[in-house]
Amino acid sequence: MRILKVSSKSGASQVAGAIAGAIREEGKVEVQSIGAGAANQAIKAIAIARGFLLETDVNLVCVPSFIDIEIDGESRTALSMIVEPR
Amino acid sequence: MRILKVSSKSGASQVAGAIAGAIREEGKVEVQSIGAGAANQAIKAIAIARGFLLETDVNLVCVPSFIDIEIDGESRTALSMIVEPR
Repeated sequence: MRILKVSSKSGASQVAGAIAGAIREEGKVEVQSIGAGAANQAIKAIAIARGFLLETDVNLVCVPSFIDIEIDGESRTALSMIVEPR
Repeated sequence: MRILKVSSKSGASQVAGAIAGAIREEGKVEVQSIGAGAANQAIKAIAIARGFLLETDVNLVCVPSFIDIEIDGESRTALSMIVEPR
């Protein structure tokens, strides 16, 4: 599954396009973020992608969970959102 | 459907408990937030509630969208997340 890493500076519309593309090509995608600003961009992007794909009768849902990822040798808690059709 | 309004100061564990309670009692719940800090607390709460309910074989998903709500006579864009079993 493709992983999209979202930061607080990511453009929500741009990430939404990447989510919609990944869903069309692979059926599901994981969106990862660390911190409040990044989580906000991630969930906004998912809401926008949902609007895009509703037009083609694809009803996206997201499944949030916490994961540990390693950055520069340090373990950080990230928010993972699996996005897929219902 | 019950509506839980989450702010940036809401405790994620406390909101998670309210989400789990609403799901058990009514089957689904809407979580509303305005702004990055509030959206972050809301999505964290949903991830925590998901963990609670997985223990009882309930697999929660969330459906994010933008909605307009009125606060003190002004229209604001909020993030709405419908939380329900898959």
